[in-house]
Amino acid sequence: MKRLKRISLLGSTGSIGKSTLDVVSQHPEEFSVVAMAAGSNIELLAEQIEQFRPELVSVGNAQAAKELQGRLGNSRVEIMYGEAGLEETAKHAEANFVMTAVVGSIGVAPTLAAIEAGKTIGLANKETLVSAGHIVMKAARDRGVQIIPVDSEHSAIFQCLQGERREDIARIILTASGGSFRHLSREELADVTVEQALHHPNWSMGSKITIDSATMMNKGFEVIEAHWLFDLPYEQIECVLHYESIIHSMVEYKDRAVMAQLGTPDMRVPIQYALSYPKRMPLGTEPLDLVKSGTLHFAPMDFDRYPLLQLAYECGRVGGTHPTVLNAANEVAVDSFLRGSIAFLEIEKIVRQTCEAHQGTSHPSLEEILAADQWARDQAASCLGVNKR
Amino acid sequence: MKRLKRISLLGSTGSIGKSTLDVVSQHPEEFSVVAMAAGSNIELLAEQIEQFRPELVSVGNAQAAKELQGRLGNSRVEIMYGEAGLEETAKHAEANFVMTAVVGSIGVAPTLAAIEAGKTIGLANKETLVSAGHIVMKAARDRGVQIIPVDSEHSAIFQCLQGERREDIARIILTASGGSFRHLSREELADVTVEQALHHPNWSMGSKITIDSATMMNKGFEVIEAHWLFDLPYEQIECVLHYESIIHSMVEYKDRAVMAQLGTPDMRVPIQYALSYPKRMPLGTEPLDLVKSGTLHFAPMDFDRYPLLQLAYECGRVGGTHPTVLNAANEVAVDSFLRGSIAFLEIEKIVRQTCEAHQGTSHPSLEEILAADQWARDQAASCLGVNKR
Repeated sequence: MKRLKRISLLGSTGSIGKSTLDVVSQHPEEFSVVAMAAGSNIELLAEQIEQFRPELVSVGNAQAAKELQGRLGNSRVEIMYGEAGLEETAKHAEANFVMTAVVGSIGVAPTLAAIEAGKTIGLANKETLVSAGHIVMKAARDRGVQIIPVDSEHSAIFQCLQGERREDIARIILTASGGSFRHLSREELADVTVEQALHHPNWSMGSKITIDSATMMNKGFEVIEAHWLFDLPYEQIECVLHYESIIHSMVEYKDRAVMAQLGTPDMRVPIQYALSYPKRMPLGTEPLDLVKSGTLHFAPMDFDRYPLLQLAYECGRVGGTHPTVLNAANEVAVDSFLRGSIAFLEIEKIVRQTCEAHQGTSHPSLEEILAADQWARDQAASCLGVNKR
Repeated sequence: MKRLKRISLLGSTGSIGKSTLDVVSQHPEEFSVVAMAAGSNIELLAEQIEQFRPELVSVGNAQAAKELQGRLGNSRVEIMYGEAGLEETAKHAEANFVMTAVVGSIGVAPTLAAIEAGKTIGLANKETLVSAGHIVMKAARDRGVQIIPVDSEHSAIFQCLQGERREDIARIILTASGGSFRHLSREELADVTVEQALHHPNWSMGSKITIDSATMMNKGFEVIEAHWLFDLPYEQIECVLHYESIIHSMVEYKDRAVMAQLGTPDMRVPIQYALSYPKRMPLGTEPLDLVKSGTLHFAPMDFDRYPLLQLAYECGRVGGTHPTVLNAANEVAVDSFLRGSIAFLEIEKIVRQTCEAHQGTSHPSLEEILAADQWARDQAASCLGVNKR
């Protein structure tokens, strides 16, 4: 029996990947996984293969592929690896839906491959649009492929746009929890640890996005992602602090009516919505209880407290390769922080220094995007050398 | 030039009527008023006629018609009065949209006349659906006429339903400010004055609905109205206290995603939405500033504190003529309170006594509805005699 959605899942062992598989397992009649890709968590991947029985899997490298082959024995699953494997997974013939849940600009190539192959995209990899938004959106338009956002904020906006006309939008309002360190001043940020940074107040997420939330880089990426997804100028994209993460985001229309999507913080909701759209399906998650929440708080976004958000608006407005460089530098800096090599506030410094050193290109080709990405990684690494503790 | 919406406005001098005319005046290219009906505020009506130039107006009685004629002199406007005039206004040949903004079950007959004449209905008169929901909704279905809610709560739900499937609804959640006396205990309600009761914390509305908000009868009517408008069982209709009236109401879907409509409390937003639907148009109203609001509070609905809400659920569930009687008894009791004849808490008592004395009819005809309405008015009046202070 052919399921409604036959999914290729890029990034199956990450936070979004695991939640996606949870959603699939709740609807075995409607959803199946035909291909999946992961990095190096071979143990978990082997379990996932056992449970979901994809036809193709791809892992990070040859060594991981060998290890997986050893674990699986005589399994009929095809095993690939590396960038080529990731792309083959993205365009697997049996798939009609590709969930891109890898982390970082590594998502660009397989997303483009999936679009080229005519798959509907569930976009959980925001770095793809940050890094190469104009190329990805043009490819989707040209191929008539739908990109459904999976980020909770963008899913909220996407839901708020249903039944409405784009020209009636006044502005979109992204909510931000403030991240792990929202109660700390910038002075107090100097000595925070990786462990503290990984403790997000509302969401349980992967480590990279949790750090990006603490620096507000994540919200900056979301602003750029929203710009591309919803084809809106930056002037119409605002951010507001909302500590409880109950209102996931909002759209204000020109009659000043504001539509919002709310819920308990559970990524399975936007994941399932992307899969079931335009329908909805039951989901085993906790209903929202506003009485239990009691109060929802809002505060103005503080660009001085969160300079990377300001930088994201600036890079977004300049466009070209600037957002690419912003993202790549951030990937290097966050990775370095997570390894304990630099202090928390050095992330901002490295990202800003890299962006300032960049000679941008307007309307870059994919090759220019990839070159800028590589340049930014090298540049950030050299900044790292200077800033390492 | 024929406008997009040529409006017959029933209740032009009331709060909703005035706001409707304000909306019309903001969009003279799209909206015009071809007919209007009012009660006895002839001075204001004459000004409205001067400004909006309808072809037909209707007033409460012959005396008012004569007074209006005297004021207008040689104006070309046709003047009618009474129930017949109201119905003629409702089915005016030039109108394609009827805004029913009269107060009370007097709205039933003209609403049915407008439906029969194939007009789109902007329903701002909730008593119509409370009193005769099954008849009105059936008439609209049979005639293929759309009823667009204008109550802020129901407009919010209507907006939250756009682009969604009815079968995906888990529940709707009506928000309630708690009304003028929300900080008072039941004991403290004994001696409240009419003036105090008319001071609603968030909304500027007509006097009857303001009293209904203070007793929570208004929310009870909204529950019954929602039952009919959205074809949902009472089990799927909930109420929550939300003091700021910023979230106007919500819909929870079966995936637990909650859609909400928010805004500053301004009736012109739902009025204009009903007129512009499915499009939106600019409106000169204050944008929502959640940062300025700062905090949104929620608390469980308290059925002991607000027994009329409980009674509304009971009457709604029993159905038949019970909601008709609930509404008619309430109209009599509120009128009596507003005239200073009874104390605030007597409203509840009279309504409950009348409902308890009622021998209901299931599946009542329009005649049975009208008879039950009259019976309830007589019964409530006799209770009044006993309870008068």
